Amino acid sequence: MFSPFGAPAERNFVVGLRMQILDGKKAAQSIKDDLRIEVAQRANEGKKIPHLAAILVGNNGASETYVAAKVKACEETGFKSTLVRLADDISEFKLLEVIEDLNENTDVDGILVQLPLPKHISSKKVINAINPDKDVDGFHPMSVGKMVEGLPTFIPATPYGIMLLLEHYKIETKGKHAVVIGRSNIVGRPMSILLSGNSNPGNCTVTICHSHTQNLKEICLQGDIIVAALGIPEFVKPDMVKPGAVIIDVGITRVADSTRKSGFKLKGDVEYDTVAPSTSWITPVPGGVGPMTIAALMKNTFMSCKNKND
Amino acid sequence: MFSPFGAPAERNFVVGLRMQILDGKKAAQSIKDDLRIEVAQRANEGKKIPHLAAILVGNNGASETYVAAKVKACEETGFKSTLVRLADDISEFKLLEVIEDLNENTDVDGILVQLPLPKHISSKKVINAINPDKDVDGFHPMSVGKMVEGLPTFIPATPYGIMLLLEHYKIETKGKHAVVIGRSNIVGRPMSILLSGNSNPGNCTVTICHSHTQNLKEICLQGDIIVAALGIPEFVKPDMVKPGAVIIDVGITRVADSTRKSGFKLKGDVEYDTVAPSTSWITPVPGGVGPMTIAALMKNTFMSCKNKND
Repeated sequence: MFSPFGAPAERNFVVGLRMQILDGKKAAQSIKDDLRIEVAQRANEGKKIPHLAAILVGNNGASETYVAAKVKACEETGFKSTLVRLADDISEFKLLEVIEDLNENTDVDGILVQLPLPKHISSKKVINAINPDKDVDGFHPMSVGKMVEGLPTFIPATPYGIMLLLEHYKIETKGKHAVVIGRSNIVGRPMSILLSGNSNPGNCTVTICHSHTQNLKEICLQGDIIVAALGIPEFVKPDMVKPGAVIIDVGITRVADSTRKSGFKLKGDVEYDTVAPSTSWITPVPGGVGPMTIAALMKNTFMSCKNKND
Repeated sequence: MFSPFGAPAERNFVVGLRMQILDGKKAAQSIKDDLRIEVAQRANEGKKIPHLAAILVGNNGASETYVAAKVKACEETGFKSTLVRLADDISEFKLLEVIEDLNENTDVDGILVQLPLPKHISSKKVINAINPDKDVDGFHPMSVGKMVEGLPTFIPATPYGIMLLLEHYKIETKGKHAVVIGRSNIVGRPMSILLSGNSNPGNCTVTICHSHTQNLKEICLQGDIIVAALGIPEFVKPDMVKPGAVIIDVGITRVADSTRKSGFKLKGDVEYDTVAPSTSWITPVPGGVGPMTIAALMKNTFMSCKNKND
């Protein structure tokens, strides 16, 4: 296609890249539509309907938003949902009792505890108290261990959502070099495990980077796929991205914005406006990874219902 | 230090590298010596002595050697050991019963099943049957999940042994780029998790490579540390290694050698003679990672004994 004699317009066509959006909202809708049909079928056949129980401690603004979105997704897909609201000052012991009740409740297929929890409560203890068979957030060590070993299990919702997004848009991952920025247990770490696993999507060469990485820019420039999950707004700049790369932006930080009614704006970890033009695919924020996280949670809950009842 | 006017000898000094051996035999001996003293102290204080139970199914030559080395290490350190020998054609059900007995035996602190198992037995089922509190090989999903989440647990013996070796020789890892070749659940995968974890040794930027990696040579050349764990004898050649790199060779393949009484020679995954001269540190094969694996197993068993009895 390259021609040294091409007119400017032609050259632009040759050199230019057609950036496309990894539309998480659309992909999530398609997953939820499929689930809704399957749930309706189950209802017709007299089978059990999935039931998600969410626990919300206190009333942190972002947590309220996330939990509300999960409850809404249950309504959209025909799942049953229970929202357990607990006061900020609930004791750890009392919270563990609530979880134990939900563990024993045979109608409940999935249990999630919205994080973060107040400081006087150990998140680890709470998550470890969830029956692994109902651990639809995939944070229990048993779920994590099975994921590492490639056994069937609940995959943490955000990494699972990203895998579903790559699958939805048929992004080729085999043999690609994926650079994951961030090593959190919730996103970066499982993402590096899943992308390097023997699966499709997967089979990437994966480099995991973090606060001690010394030559981040050079490493990012090698990435055919970059997963930005460090939680610093607009950290990834255009000079860190290889032309044609696929960009997954997991960041979602509320940045003050007095021009908005809410008083804030959501920012990803990628400087979208400057980075997007030279990529092949990119997730917007919001509307990228966020909706996929919820779709993945729904899929996990549906699977749990089937595993336990069919 | 660089001087364009330097005499050849001087330049050699500046450019030259002094390769040193990561002597696993010595480091393992030092760990076992420490354990022997601690076990003797426990005996003096009337406390329980660690007890390792090993299950060997069939009589595969390499497996016999490995198990014998583990039993010998128990003798050296003053641990109690039990070797359960089972016939090649034992049923999976019967093997699971043996494990259940060892799970219930309060005198047994650690249980290991020597792999591989005969084909009619599911290794996963067998490993998952081991009580996670006695899983000194660290292969149970619960152990793996805890390792990923940075919780106290049994770390798989080979990766743990490598971490102990790096610690013993005070190899700086923070901010270094580690390239791990191989993504097995036993070595490559946990190694990539441990080296990239927020620990010391650890805090490396880690690239995990495997059979689908496209530009392995270029990636290896970036490695300040290379962990070769793919199981192909002499795969890593000098043109894949950056001068001054630290090389961990996990491979241990029996290659036919008619000049030897045994009929075979042990080969690592690194072409040692050609690679070693330009490295800063390198593990020999044998005498590198192998002895450390056993020392790590002993440490896990000791920890199990303390956790359960102190």
